Amino acid sequence: MLDRYRQMTETALEQNLYTDRLAPILVESMRYGLLNGGKRIRPSLLLCVCEMLGGKAENALPFACALEMIHSYSLVHDDLPAMDNDDYRRGKPSNHKQFGEANAILAGDGLLTEAALLLSKQAGNDAAKAEILSAALDMVSGQSYDLNEIERNEPMLHLLHAQKTGALFRAAFAAGAHLAGRSDLAEPFSKLGQAIGLLFQITDDVLDAEKDRAENKFTYLTFYGEARSRSYIQETEQQILFALAPYDNAPARELKAVVRQMTNRTE
Amino acid sequence: MLDRYRQMTETALEQNLYTDRLAPILVESMRYGLLNGGKRIRPSLLLCVCEMLGGKAENALPFACALEMIHSYSLVHDDLPAMDNDDYRRGKPSNHKQFGEANAILAGDGLLTEAALLLSKQAGNDAAKAEILSAALDMVSGQSYDLNEIERNEPMLHLLHAQKTGALFRAAFAAGAHLAGRSDLAEPFSKLGQAIGLLFQITDDVLDAEKDRAENKFTYLTFYGEARSRSYIQETEQQILFALAPYDNAPARELKAVVRQMTNRTE
Repeated sequence: MLDRYRQMTETALEQNLYTDRLAPILVESMRYGLLNGGKRIRPSLLLCVCEMLGGKAENALPFACALEMIHSYSLVHDDLPAMDNDDYRRGKPSNHKQFGEANAILAGDGLLTEAALLLSKQAGNDAAKAEILSAALDMVSGQSYDLNEIERNEPMLHLLHAQKTGALFRAAFAAGAHLAGRSDLAEPFSKLGQAIGLLFQITDDVLDAEKDRAENKFTYLTFYGEARSRSYIQETEQQILFALAPYDNAPARELKAVVRQMTNRTE
Repeated sequence: MLDRYRQMTETALEQNLYTDRLAPILVESMRYGLLNGGKRIRPSLLLCVCEMLGGKAENALPFACALEMIHSYSLVHDDLPAMDNDDYRRGKPSNHKQFGEANAILAGDGLLTEAALLLSKQAGNDAAKAEILSAALDMVSGQSYDLNEIERNEPMLHLLHAQKTGALFRAAFAAGAHLAGRSDLAEPFSKLGQAIGLLFQITDDVLDAEKDRAENKFTYLTFYGEARSRSYIQETEQQILFALAPYDNAPARELKAVVRQMTNRTE
């Protein structure tokens, strides 16, 4: 699923990382954080949406890479002792476990800066750039809500997840539309991306239910319970597939398959 | 000195910080890190160079703000316990002392993202944007050299300071030239900015000599000793004033005064 887009992203990530003149350990820790076997779901969705709407994935690649660099930096910082304090990421030591805290902070800073620099080097497409960077800011806010004491009510649950997880999915869809020359669709596609981000988050919550409950986390599952979360997943899936119904080219069919698979994912 | 540019920057910083929808504590910690009585030397130099070369400071303001946001985020992260572990910044508790480590990490991430977002919202001027973001990446590298074990030799001393301090000064001058429509001068002005950054760094080292020696820091002063550092300051000052000699409008005279004052600064 999305394999071609994932492969394209994987190759381009390496090519688009500017490492000239940078301190060797900074380069090593940045590469460790970026080239780590991630699923590349956000950039792949950006490329898929772009092709679905008649654009060329090749032209959208640097934007997809920037989006993934932003996602990667956020994981490096999220794992830090002062944040989620995770020793492992995808079965390997987290960045600060491998390189120490100072280097992990700098690796994250470096990846975020690379993303912005990469975007700045693309001619035009200002709307796509702003979508991606505005989502990156929302993501920081979502992480802030997640780490501080907040009221646990329904609007806050939606806001937190819309920002923390939803924002980058929203950006993938909106930027994909802009890059296909279909800025007229940026707003509805932004909402579609937000919905897919939500779906991704809730299915994640269902998978992590036991752990999250033990840690008293504020998730869809701990708030709504399993039955309601599952019906929420079904509803959201149906809404997304309904919105995608008018599209029937190869990327559209792939996107629909991704949505169905997301609902049934087991990892 | 540079008062008008500093005032312009101060007012614009507040206006250019996008805080819609952001978590209140994130906004508070970002503002604490940004609006903290800084001297605004880098953005003021950018505006001054722009006017010296015939541009309008007003048009360059968002770029100056982005540069200062990048400088501010780097101070917030540099003060963190895992980095320089400083409890105070300009006589007030450092960001992590005030808001906790997690919020300080996010405040830095937020300010860097704001800088990139602000740049992305300016039409055109791609070269100025790339100068600023490329310098931001060099700065992270300089910080990496500073925090890790490195060989203490002359080329490394220059590289470390060229990146850690010099890069943002270099960007101020190069971006100032681009924004004045004088991209033909971007390269020589880039070198001029680098030299002024060096001057700023060495005079700083002379002021902090005692503390740096006690902490075994790798600075111009601890490496060259005081006499040679002072003659280095004189030489660099003369080179800069020589390069600025052809310019004689009001901003040029102000810039020369800044250089002379830098050499004699006592704080």
